[in-house]
Amino acid sequence: MTTPSTADTLARLADTLATRRPDRGGDPQTSYTAKLLARGPDAFLKKIGEEATELVMAAKDGTRERIVAETADLWYHCLVALTHFDLRPEDVLAELARREGLSGLEEKASRPRD
Amino acid sequence: MTTPSTADTLARLADTLATRRPDRGGDPQTSYTAKLLARGPDAFLKKIGEEATELVMAAKDGTRERIVAETADLWYHCLVALTHFDLRPEDVLAELARREGLSGLEEKASRPRD
Amino acid sequence: MTTPSTADTLARLADTLATRRPDRGGDPQTSYTAKLLARGPDAFLKKIGEEATELVMAAKDGTRERIVAETADLWYHCLVALTHFDLRPEDVLAELARREGLSGLEEKASRPRD
Amino acid sequence: MTTPSTADTLARLADTLATRRPDRGGDPQTSYTAKLLARGPDAFLKKIGEEATELVMAAKDGTRERIVAETADLWYHCLVALTHFDLRPEDVLAELARREGLSGLEEKASRPRD
Repeated sequence: MTTPSTADTLARLADTLATRRPDRGGDPQTSYTAKLLARGPDAFLKKIGEEATELVMAAKDGTRERIVAETADLWYHCLVALTHFDLRPEDVLAELARREGLSGLEEKASRPRD
Repeated sequence: MTTPSTADTLARLADTLATRRPDRGGDPQTSYTAKLLARGPDAFLKKIGEEATELVMAAKDGTRERIVAETADLWYHCLVALTHFDLRPEDVLAELARREGLSGLEEKASRPRD
Repeated sequence: MTTPSTADTLARLADTLATRRPDRGGDPQTSYTAKLLARGPDAFLKKIGEEATELVMAAKDGTRERIVAETADLWYHCLVALTHFDLRPEDVLAELARREGLSGLEEKASRPRD
Repeated sequence: MTTPSTADTLARLADTLATRRPDRGGDPQTSYTAKLLARGPDAFLKKIGEEATELVMAAKDGTRERIVAETADLWYHCLVALTHFDLRPEDVLAELARREGLSGLEEKASRPRD
């Protein structure tokens, strides 16, 4: 017996989030995710900016438990954004894997760096 | 036989990133990740703020390919931060799974909302 | 008779904000500013990240009225941060003027650029 | 006789920035501001997200000199955004003054709070 793989967790969460879309029966009255999706992009995009800042602050404090919790918050709101655009975490993981394949994750050639 | 699976992409990336730590032989001269880790938290935390903003802009434009690419950028820099603090993506996924288990991902009771 | 100068507005706001410091009699029950200051840096720093994201979204939409309102929100929370650290908007304006004097605001030599 | 006043620093900076607009003769080859304006909104909006994060980090460190420098960086890039949209810092200050007038800067009634 194996523990669930990491992608299983993300894929399962994405499945759940997809059911929260208002056009698929998600209820903004009972579901925080459905409420975010119903309010439209600015609602969850604002949270991405906010949670990124909270992750930065937790990391400055060096409190490992909060770093995990804030990263979870940030990734969750990213998943909400992906759900809105009918995208999947698997798309993101495939992109990460593609870059890794190109150059051992050092992908300097594959994306412009500022 | 399985298709090339994304199943443990995050875990495998984290393994690779761990080898980029300067204290484990990572070379800032040849590896972007090692350079970020060698420069310390502000270097990769700044990127988290920057990539979050780029994701927000891509989402405002509604360009799906850029949304995937910017989410990949953001998650990658989160993984670098986790690596610095000796944390794993599995820790984040476990937290997400825990919240899902609590209340169908609606976890209102389990984290304070502003 | 002259219109109030821009620095007059910032200086006057900073004077008001200073009276909101809990250690100078600010009341978190009646004043939003006093509440932010009483809760400590994370409370107002989080707002800086959030308002920056809202400004970015307003600018992507190109709605001039919201751009002004979000910039005001962002600067206001910056002023709260300055107040916490016993700094003044005049310090920031002096730094901006110093850079302008150095190189017509193009200050490439005076600060590192990434 | 007055001391060198910061009184109209923001207005003067805005005047200078306006001359950097590519459609008013700004040269991206010699001016950082003109380069940002020529590249379009994403270029300077990204900097707003980045500088906000740097301000948050400086504040977490409590280094007053960096707090001033990062706030200057953030406000400068806000001024670039205002310039792009033909807005003025005076518009932002008028909005701040308006709110102050409404309720002693506590403006709870005048803007929605999340």
